[in-house]
Order: sequence, then structure tokens, then C-alpha cells
Amino acid sequence: MTYHFAERITALKPSAIREILKATSDPNLISLAAGSPDSASFPKAEMQEIANQLFEQQAVTALQYGITEGYTPLREQTMERMKSKYQTGSENDDIIITTGGQQVIHLLTSVMISEGDVVIAEDPSFVGALNCFRSAGAVLKGVSMDDEGMKMDELEEILRTTDRVKFVYVIPTFQNPSGRTMSLARRKKLLELADQYDFLILEDGPYFELRFSGDPVPNIKSMDTSGRVIFSGSYSKVLSPGMRIGFAIGPKEVIGKMTISKQTSDVHTNLFFQMMVSEYLKQYDIDAHIAEIRKLYTVKRDAMVAACEKYFDKRVPFTRPDGGLFLWGELPEGYSGFELCKRATARLVAAVPGSAFSVDEDPNSRGFRMNYSLPTVEQIDKGVAILGEVMREYLAE
Amino acid sequence: MTYHFAERITALKPSAIREILKATSDPNLISLAAGSPDSASFPKAEMQEIANQLFEQQAVTALQYGITEGYTPLREQTMERMKSKYQTGSENDDIIITTGGQQVIHLLTSVMISEGDVVIAEDPSFVGALNCFRSAGAVLKGVSMDDEGMKMDELEEILRTTDRVKFVYVIPTFQNPSGRTMSLARRKKLLELADQYDFLILEDGPYFELRFSGDPVPNIKSMDTSGRVIFSGSYSKVLSPGMRIGFAIGPKEVIGKMTISKQTSDVHTNLFFQMMVSEYLKQYDIDAHIAEIRKLYTVKRDAMVAACEKYFDKRVPFTRPDGGLFLWGELPEGYSGFELCKRATARLVAAVPGSAFSVDEDPNSRGFRMNYSLPTVEQIDKGVAILGEVMREYLAE
Repeated sequence: MTYHFAERITALKPSAIREILKATSDPNLISLAAGSPDSASFPKAEMQEIANQLFEQQAVTALQYGITEGYTPLREQTMERMKSKYQTGSENDDIIITTGGQQVIHLLTSVMISEGDVVIAEDPSFVGALNCFRSAGAVLKGVSMDDEGMKMDELEEILRTTDRVKFVYVIPTFQNPSGRTMSLARRKKLLELADQYDFLILEDGPYFELRFSGDPVPNIKSMDTSGRVIFSGSYSKVLSPGMRIGFAIGPKEVIGKMTISKQTSDVHTNLFFQMMVSEYLKQYDIDAHIAEIRKLYTVKRDAMVAACEKYFDKRVPFTRPDGGLFLWGELPEGYSGFELCKRATARLVAAVPGSAFSVDEDPNSRGFRMNYSLPTVEQIDKGVAILGEVMREYLAE
Repeated sequence: MTYHFAERITALKPSAIREILKATSDPNLISLAAGSPDSASFPKAEMQEIANQLFEQQAVTALQYGITEGYTPLREQTMERMKSKYQTGSENDDIIITTGGQQVIHLLTSVMISEGDVVIAEDPSFVGALNCFRSAGAVLKGVSMDDEGMKMDELEEILRTTDRVKFVYVIPTFQNPSGRTMSLARRKKLLELADQYDFLILEDGPYFELRFSGDPVPNIKSMDTSGRVIFSGSYSKVLSPGMRIGFAIGPKEVIGKMTISKQTSDVHTNLFFQMMVSEYLKQYDIDAHIAEIRKLYTVKRDAMVAACEKYFDKRVPFTRPDGGLFLWGELPEGYSGFELCKRATARLVAAVPGSAFSVDEDPNSRGFRMNYSLPTVEQIDKGVAILGEVMREYLAE
């Protein structure tokens, strides 16, 4: 029979990255295509210890239904930590625990976007967010970036000429896929524009604590005096992504609506793991744990930057991220990231073509994204070497 | 500042039940308002044993990102069990693991419903589903029930006179809130009408295995020859609701679209607990476990029916469910379930007013829902006795 799907859904494609990940079953393939943490960063022993405590002392609570806004101690601990350590969140804000950071994007979209409303994003940007906006029938506008992040003059030009802008979506720190960080001046300018043109800012911050070099830049939310910023956070990159525990900090009224929307989405997030994270924060030093992850990834980031310098054609610039999980390269005019990645996959190295992150879904995007958190240092060197070879052959055509 | 929420969201209220549950912090309150399983039904020792196995043998997999459609062994085990035991699912169907049964409703709605599309439901029905349809901008139509479930002549009248009906939502077995079960003849008629009027059926089956008396009635999905039924299942009522593990079995094309939508909702469901359920199904006998839960609830159902017979005014009929978690009462003309529940709460007994489940959000609904799975037998007797007293006083006015 013929199924009549909602029109806004019909054009939506599965995430190219997830499809690539599914295809990477060849054990010899070197994947630089993931967005996954190094499994060495999971505090396995501590979590096992906590799980046993929960089963012995609080099983009845942990396995029963919970409330939609999340496990109260975890909400309080997370809010307290974000406030005191990062000045992120104020007395006008509330917090909701979500099923991963992705659900923050989904919930804000569901309460804000009617078909035809406009969302503005960095171009390129995180495909899971772009697809969420698309699936709600939003009109997407992309703003290009330089080394200081989203270009504010380009954004302002769009704002001047576009109605119905509901929010601007940014990953200001160690952006996915570019690895770039928005400068303090641009963050302040973005807040000014939000007041001037009356829009919200969805600040996606899954990586902001994973800084290896350079000076910290304050979260946009820490400078939000008019209740325009919703901060999306996640324990995926500092504890475990498979458990799906994220959170949103934002104006009380907005979090309230998102909570109602969450009731209809999944009722609440896995309670056992909410309690696991809460006990972890209580019993262990998460800052010390994050410091260890930073050390682990610094070595890998350095290895990838060194390998790119060694193996890449000099006409191919790449970013040198101060943190996060990704590095972004760009081929010269006339060459396509998709073609490069296709050829690399045939040689058992996976990277993600820029087209996957393009706001306009531009198939000819010259960019490509490489991940250094999941592969070993040896795999990084070998993978980038092969990518460099494939690149040299391709650029010689 | 003023937040401009999407219009379809603005009218949406928080679930009355969840709000009541939040308010029930008085330890002396007897709650007949929940929809929660008895925590004695959670296989705590077995789950602790499995958790330790997972941490020792498969931690790297269980804490890492998973794929959106769900943990492959759990998908296969669930599909195999549903097919062989309940003839539910065929070679034309696929399965997706979801963050609880609620997410099946959310995902199907997100891929099917454009604003103004019509969803038809039993009236009264599960508020979490009704609110999900409302939040997508669907137009809701309710069909009343008798002891055989949804009235097919009333449904057909709506179908004859209504365009854009996308799907009919039913909880055919031990319906929430009424406790009623749809007869086999009505199930067959519903499938015929689906073919005739070209709509889908969302069959919500969270309780169907919890039968205490009477003969089993086949799932609607088991008689679906034209790919019109999406079956929503859940491990919430047979293992643990807090873990949020549900599933949908439906036509491959529909499950495929739901998978794309899930990528943008929460990427995937908590992987550790997907693996917990998979190992439980492998290492233990879930059918024996469900048989124990049935015994536990049979006693409670019997206690509640006996208490209603003893304490209720004879002008107040109530259902005698053959399974599930709920019993439904109805006051005489001119009296409101809301008023009854309000007065009962003041006497420290909570039940849920029918208005919460009303498709039209009728504030004067005469119904009220009582749950027997969570309270003890003693609480059931005492709670219904007080409810009976409150009722007698109210009906004397």
C-alpha cells in the first residue's frame, strides 16, 4: 500500500554519518568518521560500583517511573555545577534532564517551530540538528564561518531581510564539524542582535569542557541577561554517550513548555542512569576525570594535526582545534569532499564529506570532517596517510 | 521577555496525572491515581546480576553510541517472541526499539501528521497519546465505547464525513483508562474499515500480556494483511518502566521513516538497558516472570472489584477488567468526576478525573480512573472505602 507521510518528512534522508557508521563493519577499516568518545574515557569501574549500590539501596526508585523534568538531585547538581563553574544559568532559569543533547534540540524545535518558521545555523553544522529543524518544516538559513566563528555581518544581513526567525543555532565552542570556536566579541554581538531582532539562541555545548589549548571563552548563556539563550549540555562526551543523558538550561517558561513536550515524547529519561550520573557527581571528582580525558585527546589531536601537516597536499587547509572531537579540511575549488571520502572508503579509511553538514545540502561541498577521539594514535597516522595519498591522486586529475 | 511558542503548543497543558503524582508527596496519601507497576514486579536481583556481567564483559559496547533502530539482538529476540507467541509481525514488518512505548506514539505522529490531519481515538483514552496528537496540531475525534470497546457504527459515521483521517489510535486490550477489551468482531471490523477508508491503525499494547481472566483476544496486528497496523509494545509493565524500553512493529517503510525521525529525537535509546533486556530474555524465562506478575495483580484487581462492590453507591457502575492496571467508574448524570477526585484528595485518596482522558477535554466528565497495581491490598480497601464515603456525601447533595 501507499503510505502518506507528512510532507515535511518525505525529503528527509537518514544521517549520512550514521549510515556510514553502519557500513563500517569491515574490521580493517580505519574510521575517522565517527563522533564517538574514546571508550577508554568511560569510568567503567566507578559506574559498576554505583550500579551495585543502586540495585542494593535504591532499586525500587531507580526502576520505577520518574518525573518528566528529571531526577531532582541530578538537576540540582548539574545546575549548581554549571552556575558556579561556568556562570551558566541564573535564578531566572530552570533545568530539564533530556535523553541526550539531541533531545534538547528536538524539544526546543517542537515548542517553537511552526512550518515556515526560520532557523539560522552555522554553515556547515551538526547534521542531527539540521535534520531536526528540517523535519519540523523549518526554513534553514546558513551563515558561513571564519576562524572567529559565525560571521556576524552575514548574519545581520539575513536578519535584516528575513521574517519569522525563531532562533539561531550555534555550537560556539569546538564546533561540529569545523572544530572552530566563536570569539568573545562575536558571542557578545550575537546577544546584541538577539535583543535587536527578537530571537532566541540555542547554544549547543556538548564539547565545551574538552579544551586542550588556548584560553577558555565564556559560554554565551553566561552573558544572557534577557532570557534569550537555551544552553544544551550533555554527559555523553565526559561520561558515556550510550546512556543518553543530556540537559537544557534556559528561561523557566521555555523549559516548562519543553517539559510538557517531553511528556509526549518519552515521558522521562532512563532513571537508573540519571541516578548513576547523580551518584557519580556525588562520589567522584568529575573535573579530575575530565582533565584525564583532555590529556587523552590532546595526544590524539596533536597526532592528527601532525599527520595532516605531513601527508596533506599544501593546497588543502585544515583547522587546528583547541578542543572537541573534530578537525575540518577543505579541498581546492573544483574538488568535492564527497568524491574524496568515497575514494578513501574504498581504501578502508572513512571520513565524512562536508555535504552531510551543509545547510543547503550542497553535494559539491569541498569540506570533509575527521574525528580523532575514537581512533588510536597509530590509526590516526595511518588513516591520514592514506587520506593524503587518495587526495594527492585526486588533486592530480 | 515574551516567548513566541508554536501556536499548536500554546494550549497544551501538563498531564493532569503527572501533576497529581507530583503533588502526592504526603506520605499518608493513598494513591489510586498512578499508572505504575508494583515495584515487587521488578526482577531486581536478575538485573543486578546482568548489569555486573555487562560491566565486566561488554562495557565498551554498552556505554558507547549505538544505532538508532536499536540493539540488534534485542530487536531480533523481541520480533521472534511477538511473532511466535502472538502472531504479531510478519516478513513485511520491521521493528524499532524506542524510549518507552510513548515514543512509538511520538514517532508515528511525527512522520504522519501535518497540522489539520485527523486522528481518531477511543473516548476516553490515554492522555499521553492525546497530548502527543494535540501537540502535532492534529484534529482529534473521539469514539465512545461499550463493553466490546470502540463502537464501530460511530467510527464509521465519522469516517464517512471526515477527510484527512491519518490513523485510528486504539488500546484494544485492557484499555487505559477504561479497562475494557475490544471484541474480536470489532477488531476485524476496524481492519475492514481501515482498508475501506485508507487509514492506519496505531495499536497500543502496553498491557496485553497482563491478563488475569477470560480468553485472550488476538492482537489487531496479528490479523493485519495489508500493512496498516503499527503495534506499540513495551517492557515497562513486565520488567521496569524507569528504564524506558519500548518497541514498534510495523510495515518496513513506516518503521524506516520512524527511524529517521528518532535520529533527530534522541539518536538512540539507552543502550545499556537495551542490552539488559536482551540478556534477560536470553538468560531468564520472561513468560514465567509475567505469570508471577499476573498472580500479583489478580489479587489486587479482585480486591478493588470487591471494595467497589462493597463501598460504592449502587448508582455508580464500574468496569471489571480482565487484565491491565485500571478500573473505571462513572457517576450519575449531573455529577462530575473532577469534583469527586478533588474531594477525595482532600481526604488523602487520589484518583484521576475522567476529564483528563476526555478527547474533547470535557471538564464535566462523569468518569474517574482507579489503579490497583501500585497500592497494596490494604490501601485498595481503605482508599476505595474513603472514595465511597466521599461519593455518598457528594451524591446526597
